Amino acid sequence: MYMSFARITAAEAAALIKNGDNIGLSGFTPAGTPKATTAEIAKIAHAEHEADRPYQIGIFTGASTGLSCDGVLAQEDAIKYRAPYTTNSIFRGKVNEGKIAYNDIHLSQMAQELRYGFLGDVDWAILEVCAIEDDGKVYLTAAGGIAPTVARLAKKGIILELNSFHSAKSIGIHDVYEPKDPPLREPIMITKVTDRIGTTYLQLDPKKIVGVVECNIPDEARAFKDADPVTDKIGENVANFLMAEHKRGIIPESFLPFQSGVGTTANAILGALGSNPDMPAFEVYTEVLQNAIVDLMYKGRVKCASTCSLSVTNDKLLDIYDNMDFFKDKLVIRPSEISNSPEVVRRLGLIAINTAIEVDIYGHANSTQICGTKMMNGIGGSGDFERNAFLSIFTCSSVAKGGCISAIVPFCSHIDHTEHDVKVIVTEQGVADLRGKSPIERAKTIIENCAHPDYKQFLWDYLKISQKGHSCHNLAATHAFHDTFIKEGDMRKVDFSKYTL
Amino acid sequence: MYMSFARITAAEAAALIKNGDNIGLSGFTPAGTPKATTAEIAKIAHAEHEADRPYQIGIFTGASTGLSCDGVLAQEDAIKYRAPYTTNSIFRGKVNEGKIAYNDIHLSQMAQELRYGFLGDVDWAILEVCAIEDDGKVYLTAAGGIAPTVARLAKKGIILELNSFHSAKSIGIHDVYEPKDPPLREPIMITKVTDRIGTTYLQLDPKKIVGVVECNIPDEARAFKDADPVTDKIGENVANFLMAEHKRGIIPESFLPFQSGVGTTANAILGALGSNPDMPAFEVYTEVLQNAIVDLMYKGRVKCASTCSLSVTNDKLLDIYDNMDFFKDKLVIRPSEISNSPEVVRRLGLIAINTAIEVDIYGHANSTQICGTKMMNGIGGSGDFERNAFLSIFTCSSVAKGGCISAIVPFCSHIDHTEHDVKVIVTEQGVADLRGKSPIERAKTIIENCAHPDYKQFLWDYLKISQKGHSCHNLAATHAFHDTFIKEGDMRKVDFSKYTL
Repeated sequence: MYMSFARITAAEAAALIKNGDNIGLSGFTPAGTPKATTAEIAKIAHAEHEADRPYQIGIFTGASTGLSCDGVLAQEDAIKYRAPYTTNSIFRGKVNEGKIAYNDIHLSQMAQELRYGFLGDVDWAILEVCAIEDDGKVYLTAAGGIAPTVARLAKKGIILELNSFHSAKSIGIHDVYEPKDPPLREPIMITKVTDRIGTTYLQLDPKKIVGVVECNIPDEARAFKDADPVTDKIGENVANFLMAEHKRGIIPESFLPFQSGVGTTANAILGALGSNPDMPAFEVYTEVLQNAIVDLMYKGRVKCASTCSLSVTNDKLLDIYDNMDFFKDKLVIRPSEISNSPEVVRRLGLIAINTAIEVDIYGHANSTQICGTKMMNGIGGSGDFERNAFLSIFTCSSVAKGGCISAIVPFCSHIDHTEHDVKVIVTEQGVADLRGKSPIERAKTIIENCAHPDYKQFLWDYLKISQKGHSCHNLAATHAFHDTFIKEGDMRKVDFSKYTL
Repeated sequence: MYMSFARITAAEAAALIKNGDNIGLSGFTPAGTPKATTAEIAKIAHAEHEADRPYQIGIFTGASTGLSCDGVLAQEDAIKYRAPYTTNSIFRGKVNEGKIAYNDIHLSQMAQELRYGFLGDVDWAILEVCAIEDDGKVYLTAAGGIAPTVARLAKKGIILELNSFHSAKSIGIHDVYEPKDPPLREPIMITKVTDRIGTTYLQLDPKKIVGVVECNIPDEARAFKDADPVTDKIGENVANFLMAEHKRGIIPESFLPFQSGVGTTANAILGALGSNPDMPAFEVYTEVLQNAIVDLMYKGRVKCASTCSLSVTNDKLLDIYDNMDFFKDKLVIRPSEISNSPEVVRRLGLIAINTAIEVDIYGHANSTQICGTKMMNGIGGSGDFERNAFLSIFTCSSVAKGGCISAIVPFCSHIDHTEHDVKVIVTEQGVADLRGKSPIERAKTIIENCAHPDYKQFLWDYLKISQKGHSCHNLAATHAFHDTFIKEGDMRKVDFSKYTL
């Protein structure tokens, strides 16, 4: 137990953060993110704004945060700038109103862009920890994120939130490793999912620790929608496709490690794979571990997992902490630049499965912006994983909004992943295998196998009014689906007959 | 010298290749590509088609090839399928007519996609070599490409073209290394530009060698347009930007290795850097080495270079072969999956500079298709380098076709590189530094600094008619620039007043 460092209140910690400061946070998703100080910062912002004084800060994180950070700070218009990934709905609203400068970068690049000096100074690091030693060693909680980097870069100091909700029994779960920067960077020597290359603790400079905020705050686990027939069918389609690839020898006998996104579809896919009797027990190398994986680990269906965060429900989190004897050689938490490292992802040969908002007929995918303008989440790690995976799979429901929106469109309204990076598209309608195909072959496969029956003819019609080429497009009608939805509320009201070549 | 293998003519070699076969070639750009056999295959295709018999083959290469391969084979409609990158104009024409199924993938992924079984069988490997040993060791010529992989995978046999134009004095220049596939892949242990991890020879299975075609054929070096005031100004802008980043400590004191694309602008940039007295001697880690780099090596301005190919003029190539004592510790040729490896590119921290056809106001880049439909080149290695570089720079002239085309557009007509991967845009007008910026901040920077004066107001007008959001777009007018150019021959005739929200 620590003796050397001052105990301070969250309000005292928050009072250190001045207008214009940039704060760097531990955590990745709400998991592992400090919650006490940021909530107090929001109160200061409120008071300052009431007094007509300016108060806004910049936020650097591993990924999204929860209500106690992005939520309350956005509510108070206290965020000037933020990177990277986000999910909070209040924050998202302010971004779409143009009130927050939000910079959506690949999660694997966040720490290095800070180190490279591309994003400005880190003034303060605020880290959630479960144990502190007098020499400055601290033990992180439920996520790796960018904690090592913001702690090292923090110019004004480090605030520790010692959150007793997180048990010190978890000590040993982390593998903390921060790469050097070019020209001194070394290979990341991970060749197996659970290889360890770092330390279980994060070594801080004790002189930089300005105080310890003791608290007991549960994690802000997100609830996901229940599975439904559509997500179940997507899960079944993915599982059947992968099992066939395994059977014909494309996927090695021992299978390859999985990465999968967050949410109901991801759970449905894992459920379908986990319950398939022909599927061998498998490994997971991902950024976000959900309840479903923990359950499959207990069942012996998932052999081991590497993640950046335990984005599980609080009961599941406490359950892991209570069973560290079981998990200690099966589960490792890494910083985001390692969990999402292109180098490691490609070496291990992941099967990457992520959800798209929409895909187009040539295989580009939109992960972030609805109708090209409204930020939904951010790209997260999907680019890190999909570009470098052995197999790059995107899933989506073929329609949304009661059929008024097709997720298969002529030209994505925003492109986060290009045709060069998307190998397989799966909807509840079926599977489009794009490997080795030319653009026009991809278009035929996607329309035939993935589009909803209501939209197939519209997509064929689009090709008919398109200029022929390597890809075929009508540059007046590329986003006619979206424009029609905006103006008439239903993409099916599109009228391609009004477009000429 | 070899004794074990049959000498055959190019015509005899070509006669082995049957309708429907897939051939895998050595080389990367016309450099190092076999030229004798493919020219004879074209004659067979011609005769077969005259006799009304089907004859088409698939082609797997490292990158583009020249007239003697893509050119004559496309001319005879002898190519059913081809991957990856291409530049030949006859081939390009057939692709844009829809007569060739062309699959445009990242060059670093080509060899592994073949090994993974994603692209079908490799029936024959045809390799250009400068020396052959009786145990099946061969020495490649001016490129690494995918030679190790196609040689190992070839099911029906290997044809060697022993091209005496390439001197055996070059032996030692190659570092041949083929990674294992997951789950057995190991780290690629390159930490410095000239590190060697493989062998100087390629070990073939002697039993697979069906014959040796002896020939003497020069390489098909491409000529580039002369520098002009626009490319010179782009070069100057890039050099000034980089020198300023160096001065303020963002780029390390010793600088970082360069990757740069092919062509006049690349030469102008290298020229401007090479002649800048404040620029230290630098290193190059790239896929294509041009004359300019060789000249800078002789001057001591470039310390060393790693490449996949020597895409130099023939006199320069022979000059390198004659001066191997000078080059042997300064120059290494690697297979494309190593020269373009995301792992190595990120570790070394490259400064990547590539040319775009167009960029949009949010920082997406089009490298491949004019007006979204007409294939120009292919993505090549630009995705490998730009995604993983320390600094990702795209250059283009702000206008083309006498000012009728703006290279800065509201929404790229094809997207090969997303906003997440483009950090700096440079035109002859100036530099847009996008690091850390939100989309709308990027739009302002790009319009202000990079757009041609003729187009600035049009771009501001587009923002005025756009839906507000994280990005701002009018989904009816995203490609109005392009549509206007197609219909009226001049983007400046665009009329944004006809678009409503």
